[in-house]
Amino acid sequence: MPGPLDSQRERIDAIDRRILDLLQERNALAAEVLQAKLAAGLPIFVPERESQKVASFREAAGQLGLDPEWAEDFLRMIMSASRARQSVADFPRATPEPRTILVVGGRGRMGSLYGRMLQASGHLVRVLDQGDWDRAPGLAAGIDAAIVSVPIRDTEGVITRLGPLLPPAALLADFTSVKKRPLEAMLAAHPGPVLGLHPMHAPDVGNLSKQLLICCPGRQPEAGRWLLDQAALWGMRVKEVEPGAHDRMMNLVQGLRHFVALLHGSFMRACNIAPGDILDLSSPIYRAELMMTGRIFAQNAELYADIVFADQERRQLLLDFASHHARLAELAETDDKEGFIREFAAIGAFFGDFADQAMRESGYLIHRLADRFV
Amino acid sequence: MPGPLDSQRERIDAIDRRILDLLQERNALAAEVLQAKLAAGLPIFVPERESQKVASFREAAGQLGLDPEWAEDFLRMIMSASRARQSVADFPRATPEPRTILVVGGRGRMGSLYGRMLQASGHLVRVLDQGDWDRAPGLAAGIDAAIVSVPIRDTEGVITRLGPLLPPAALLADFTSVKKRPLEAMLAAHPGPVLGLHPMHAPDVGNLSKQLLICCPGRQPEAGRWLLDQAALWGMRVKEVEPGAHDRMMNLVQGLRHFVALLHGSFMRACNIAPGDILDLSSPIYRAELMMTGRIFAQNAELYADIVFADQERRQLLLDFASHHARLAELAETDDKEGFIREFAAIGAFFGDFADQAMRESGYLIHRLADRFV
Repeated sequence: MPGPLDSQRERIDAIDRRILDLLQERNALAAEVLQAKLAAGLPIFVPERESQKVASFREAAGQLGLDPEWAEDFLRMIMSASRARQSVADFPRATPEPRTILVVGGRGRMGSLYGRMLQASGHLVRVLDQGDWDRAPGLAAGIDAAIVSVPIRDTEGVITRLGPLLPPAALLADFTSVKKRPLEAMLAAHPGPVLGLHPMHAPDVGNLSKQLLICCPGRQPEAGRWLLDQAALWGMRVKEVEPGAHDRMMNLVQGLRHFVALLHGSFMRACNIAPGDILDLSSPIYRAELMMTGRIFAQNAELYADIVFADQERRQLLLDFASHHARLAELAETDDKEGFIREFAAIGAFFGDFADQAMRESGYLIHRLADRFV
Repeated sequence: MPGPLDSQRERIDAIDRRILDLLQERNALAAEVLQAKLAAGLPIFVPERESQKVASFREAAGQLGLDPEWAEDFLRMIMSASRARQSVADFPRATPEPRTILVVGGRGRMGSLYGRMLQASGHLVRVLDQGDWDRAPGLAAGIDAAIVSVPIRDTEGVITRLGPLLPPAALLADFTSVKKRPLEAMLAAHPGPVLGLHPMHAPDVGNLSKQLLICCPGRQPEAGRWLLDQAALWGMRVKEVEPGAHDRMMNLVQGLRHFVALLHGSFMRACNIAPGDILDLSSPIYRAELMMTGRIFAQNAELYADIVFADQERRQLLLDFASHHARLAELAETDDKEGFIREFAAIGAFFGDFADQAMRESGYLIHRLADRFV
C-alpha cells in the first residue's frame, strides 16, 4: 500500500474515534432525558417525537449529500441502542398508589419478565408457581390483580383453580397465546373484572419498548385500564382485538408459521442436505429463510408442540393447509406453468399494494443480512 | 415539557449534526481511497482489511462503554454506504488489454447489469438480444468471450444456435440458474473453453460487492480465469461447485423456496386473510416471513414459473415435498404431540450448532425489522 492511502486511512480512523466519542456523549444526555421523564412520570417512548426527530435528521442528511433512507436507518440504530439501556432503569407507575399483583407462573420466562417490569414500576409483585398451591390462598388474599402466565395446556386448569381464591373485585388477566377459551374460562371462574392479554414477543427481548400487546376485554374493561396504561408507559403498543379474530390470525401467525418451519427442517433432513452446506450456496433471501427455520430448533420442542397443536381449530387449519398443498402440487405434477401463472396473478391481485411494501421491507432485511453476516 | 429537557435535546441535536458532518467528511476520504485503489488496479473490497477495521472499532467502542455488537453493526452500515457509492465509479480491469465480450440477452436485467460492469472495467461489450440474430455472425466475429444470460427455457436453444458462430478459442459462459444441462449444451455446441456461472443475486443490487458468483468449470478452466478475476475485482465472492451438487441445492434454494412462498400466499387467499390485517397482529418473526412471501408477488410470474418448474428433477422434488407434508400432517390429524416432539428433536440433532447461529442471525433480523418498520 502506498503512503498516501495510509494517511487517508489514518484520517478515517480518527473520524471513527470522534464519532464514537460523540455517541458516548449522546448516550449520557439520553440517560439524563430518561431520568427526567421518569421523575415527571412521562412515557418513555413517544412515537410522534421519534417521527419528528427522524424527519429532521433525514433532511439534514439530505442537505449534506447523504442518502436520507440510509440516514434514517442509521439514526434508528442509535436510538434503539439508547432504548436498550432503558431495560435496566426504573419505570413510571400508571397508578398513584402501588398495586399488588399476583403473577401465576411467575418463575417462567414471560412471567418473570413482566414481574420484573411491574416491580421496576413500583408495584408489589407476588409469585405463584408450580409447588406453591398450598400457599395460594394467602398469596391471593388482598391482591388487586392476578396475571396467569402458564403453558397453553395448563391455562384453563390453572384459571379454574385460581378463580375461587381471588378477591371478587380483583382483575383477572392471562397471557395465553390463544384467547377465546381462556377468556371463557376466566369469565366462568371469576365474577369480577376480566382481561385477556397476549404479549406478541419472545421473553428474551431486551426491553418492551415498541412491542405489541394484544388485549381482549372480558368484563368491566375500565377496571383493567391501569394495566394497559402501565404497558403503554413501558413503550408497548396496545391493540384491542375480538378474541375470535385474534385466534383466527394466530392460527397462521403462530400455528402455521411454526409448522412450516418444522416441515422445512424435516424435509432438509429427509433430503440429507445439511444447513451449513446449503448456506454456502444461498441467496440472501434463502439465507434469511433458513435462519428463520433454524431458530426454532434452538428452542423448546414442548413449547412449539403446544403452540402448533394448540386446539382443534388450529389443527384443522393445518389439515386444510395440507389439502391446499396437495391441490397446488398438481401444478408441479402436470408441469402446468400456465396454471402457476394464473394462481400467481390471483394472489398478486389479492396482495395488491402490499406486495410493493413487502418488496421494500424484505429488500431492506436482505441487504442488512448480507451486510452483517456475509 | 420542562426547560431542562429542551436543553438536553438541543445538545443531542447538535451532536447528531456533528456526526452527519463527520460522515460527510469520511465519505470524501473513502472516495479518495477508492480512486487510489482504482489507479493502482487494486481490488475494491478486501475482506481481511474490513475484518481488521471491524475488530479495532469494536475494541474502541468497548473501551467507551458502548456495546461492541452494536458498534460493529453501526460501522458496517457506514462502510456499506461507502460501498454503495462505488456503483457509479469505474473498476479496475483484470486483464492488461481489454477483452471483447458478447452478452447474449444483454438487454435483459441481469445481462445489462454485467454489460455495464464489464464496460466500467474497460472491456468492450457487444449485445445480442432477441431480434438481433440476423446480425449474430458479425457480432460474434473476433470476440474473446460470450456470456449467455437468457431465461432458463431459452438457454439450451440459444447455446445451440450460438455455438457455430463463435471463434474456436473464445470462452463460452452462461448465467443460467441451473447448471448441469446448460453446461452439457455448451460443451456440445462449442469446442473451446466453457464456463458455467450463476450470479446468486437479484439484478437490482446496487453493486456487486460481497455478492456470490457460483462457477462450474466446463472445459479449459485456465482460459476462463480472467473473468473470475474480474468478478473478484468487483468485490464478488467466487465459489466453485460441481454442477450436480449446485442443481440439487438450487432445487431447495430457488425451487422449493419460491413454491412455498406461492403456497403461503395462495393459502392466505383461500382463507381470505388479507396481508394488511394480519400484519397488524404479527410478531416480528411472522412479519419477516410475510414480507419474504409478499415480495415475490411484486415480481414477474413467468420468471417464477420458470424457476419453480425449471426441470423434471426440480418438479420431482416438489412432489416429494408434498408427500413429506402429507406424512407430517398426520401428526396434526391425530393430535400427536409426542410425534411432533420426536421429529423436532431429530431435526434439532441434524441441525446441530447451526440452530444457535440461526437464532443469532434471525434475532438480529427481527430486531432490525422491528426497529425500522414498527
